[in-house]
Amino acid sequence: MKNMVYIQSGGPTSVINSSLYGAYKEAVRLPEEIDHIYGSINGIEGLVDGKLFDLREEDPEDIELLIQTPGAALGTTRRKLPKDINDPVYEQILENIQRFEIKYIFVNGGNDSMDTCNKISILCEKRGLDVRVFGVPKTIDNDLACTDHTLGYASAAKVVINSIYAISKDALCYKKGKVHIIEVMGRNAGWLTAAADLVPDDGRPDLIYLPENKFDPEQFLKDVKEVNDKKGLAIVVISEGLEFERGQAHEVDSFGHAQLSGAGQALATLLQERLGLNSRVVELSLYQRANPFLLSRNDRDEAIEVGELAVRSAVRGETGKMIVMKRVCKKPYVGRFELVPLSEVANAERKIPAEFMQDKTRMSEAFRDYLRPLIEGQVSVKFRGGIVRLTNFKKVPVKPAK
Amino acid sequence: MKNMVYIQSGGPTSVINSSLYGAYKEAVRLPEEIDHIYGSINGIEGLVDGKLFDLREEDPEDIELLIQTPGAALGTTRRKLPKDINDPVYEQILENIQRFEIKYIFVNGGNDSMDTCNKISILCEKRGLDVRVFGVPKTIDNDLACTDHTLGYASAAKVVINSIYAISKDALCYKKGKVHIIEVMGRNAGWLTAAADLVPDDGRPDLIYLPENKFDPEQFLKDVKEVNDKKGLAIVVISEGLEFERGQAHEVDSFGHAQLSGAGQALATLLQERLGLNSRVVELSLYQRANPFLLSRNDRDEAIEVGELAVRSAVRGETGKMIVMKRVCKKPYVGRFELVPLSEVANAERKIPAEFMQDKTRMSEAFRDYLRPLIEGQVSVKFRGGIVRLTNFKKVPVKPAK
Repeated sequence: MKNMVYIQSGGPTSVINSSLYGAYKEAVRLPEEIDHIYGSINGIEGLVDGKLFDLREEDPEDIELLIQTPGAALGTTRRKLPKDINDPVYEQILENIQRFEIKYIFVNGGNDSMDTCNKISILCEKRGLDVRVFGVPKTIDNDLACTDHTLGYASAAKVVINSIYAISKDALCYKKGKVHIIEVMGRNAGWLTAAADLVPDDGRPDLIYLPENKFDPEQFLKDVKEVNDKKGLAIVVISEGLEFERGQAHEVDSFGHAQLSGAGQALATLLQERLGLNSRVVELSLYQRANPFLLSRNDRDEAIEVGELAVRSAVRGETGKMIVMKRVCKKPYVGRFELVPLSEVANAERKIPAEFMQDKTRMSEAFRDYLRPLIEGQVSVKFRGGIVRLTNFKKVPVKPAK
Repeated sequence: MKNMVYIQSGGPTSVINSSLYGAYKEAVRLPEEIDHIYGSINGIEGLVDGKLFDLREEDPEDIELLIQTPGAALGTTRRKLPKDINDPVYEQILENIQRFEIKYIFVNGGNDSMDTCNKISILCEKRGLDVRVFGVPKTIDNDLACTDHTLGYASAAKVVINSIYAISKDALCYKKGKVHIIEVMGRNAGWLTAAADLVPDDGRPDLIYLPENKFDPEQFLKDVKEVNDKKGLAIVVISEGLEFERGQAHEVDSFGHAQLSGAGQALATLLQERLGLNSRVVELSLYQRANPFLLSRNDRDEAIEVGELAVRSAVRGETGKMIVMKRVCKKPYVGRFELVPLSEVANAERKIPAEFMQDKTRMSEAFRDYLRPLIEGQVSVKFRGGIVRLTNFKKVPVKPAK
């Protein structure tokens, strides 16, 4: 038997299931090469615990809906495997690979997942097992090394741009407005926050703060005051990952509530206390990565193609690699897929380069040129009675062959 | 001269500009009856201060984009006119009505606006001015009297249902989840929060708390614990208008931060302190009422038709009335527009009737039957380069005729 297992890992994106869709469809087209097509239930945990289900047993309709379903349809996990390759958990994985007669492993994830992927690949090779391990990149954070962009980033960026534009229209229709603080996802890298700079002029944020720049609360107060004095309101976009001493807000933390309020709330408190300004905090929250309504067609198509390519490459004999996107031509945008060794991408993190920033609160034209082609193209969504239709797998665990 | 002025008032909805579009288009079709088509800049303030602009002078493209533009395209205001009909502000309004030779006034707003509308209508009649004053209902809160539903409610409800479904898919894909507290708009009436009950079973919230029911924190803790013990997570939807003693969170308020954290944050604190449960708070926020991507076609079409009908009715000689929606047939849904005197709707508030609740945390089938037809039908949206196109009026103030 030559079975394959597909693993979804870490935080979902809006196109995470499109890669699964592409991989599944390609596997079905290769019956000589691939027997069972398994999904690992809840990320790597499924492979550790031997909890796999057969994707061919699912309703074909649910397969088709994958391309518009957010959240990891196979289930995911926050669990990270130990760095030590001699940890017994890896033995357990190797055992299940043999029990379920797995020949192909696909791991769809971010930095940490690529590290896990790499370890499994090394172990299989050491044991002389003919198992091909393949990485499919995914993260809304766009912070993976070696790739022009990550799958899921463009759709999330499109949500950020379009939501902020729409929200700005609401914010700006009063004569005297409020400070709007819009909090965007991204702990260490500001790629998603930076996207806000693409909002058209009639809704464009006044100030954008990325985690790449050291945050100075005094400068922030000065910036906001200047805009607010001039316009009667300010639209400020911040990354959830901004780090700063929270001043008064710090006292709140001493009650043990620190984890409950984000950077936006803390800055609203700062503005209230120091400038007497009222703010409205809008966290774009899960809507950024779980949004079937503002997919980038380019992002979704690439997600599907990468899934297909991963399967084709593995069948061809490639292993220990991840697929990356290269930009071959800037205008018009032409992308190409390439394979890179997992060891090169694992644990590396890519932050926004300096040339993409105009100053500390604005992005450069080079950044806008970078992002524009990625968010293009709309995707039509299937509804029933006004409600989006989403995949709901039954996930009945299968028994191992051995 | 027989000019018309259109006023947008209070909080915007996603279809507020569709009514303006309908009214504008109808007015253009009646050149014998209507000369200038003015927009009042920033709600009633425009009419008080004599700041009107000519909609025919705007880019025709911007007119066409009204049907997908959130926020009040004319500008709105939070200002409420005094209850006292003898207040000098009303004299100012009457003066501007005469200076700008206004024959038709359309006020698109909620409860308070209908009251203002009613007062202007009474005053014009008293002075013997042939001015027709017309109310166009609008609020995502669905709390206006005498109407089956309000324009804007269905689109906001559609956002609530679809967003929560998508977010649930993200929340549910972990083996061990968090409590998700999703905060929905609606200070006094829970219509929008209730909509969450229409999410399909594979993402349906476990618990829904409306402001219509007295909120009992002890019962809440019991409810959440029960669900969380059983499922390993809980999806809880609450109205921003929930009223309760905030316990420990109250101490935070003493620092003057009360206005910065909503009901969701307070409940998250409660869950943390009393049950040691971590929560993720998701406020659907402005996205509910400023969302061109999940419009209900039914809602938008009705919004346009009501705008048209208001103009036709006013030209026919009707005044001092508001247009309401009546449900003529439940299955299939058939709606009809009717005119009711403004005095009947002004200041009345409609809460969710008891038969629409199954119990304190669930809605009834009767409610779901009520809402289902209203959210039906999708609307295609015009994008450019992946970014939605929105109206941006120049709003050049005109000079009065006299």
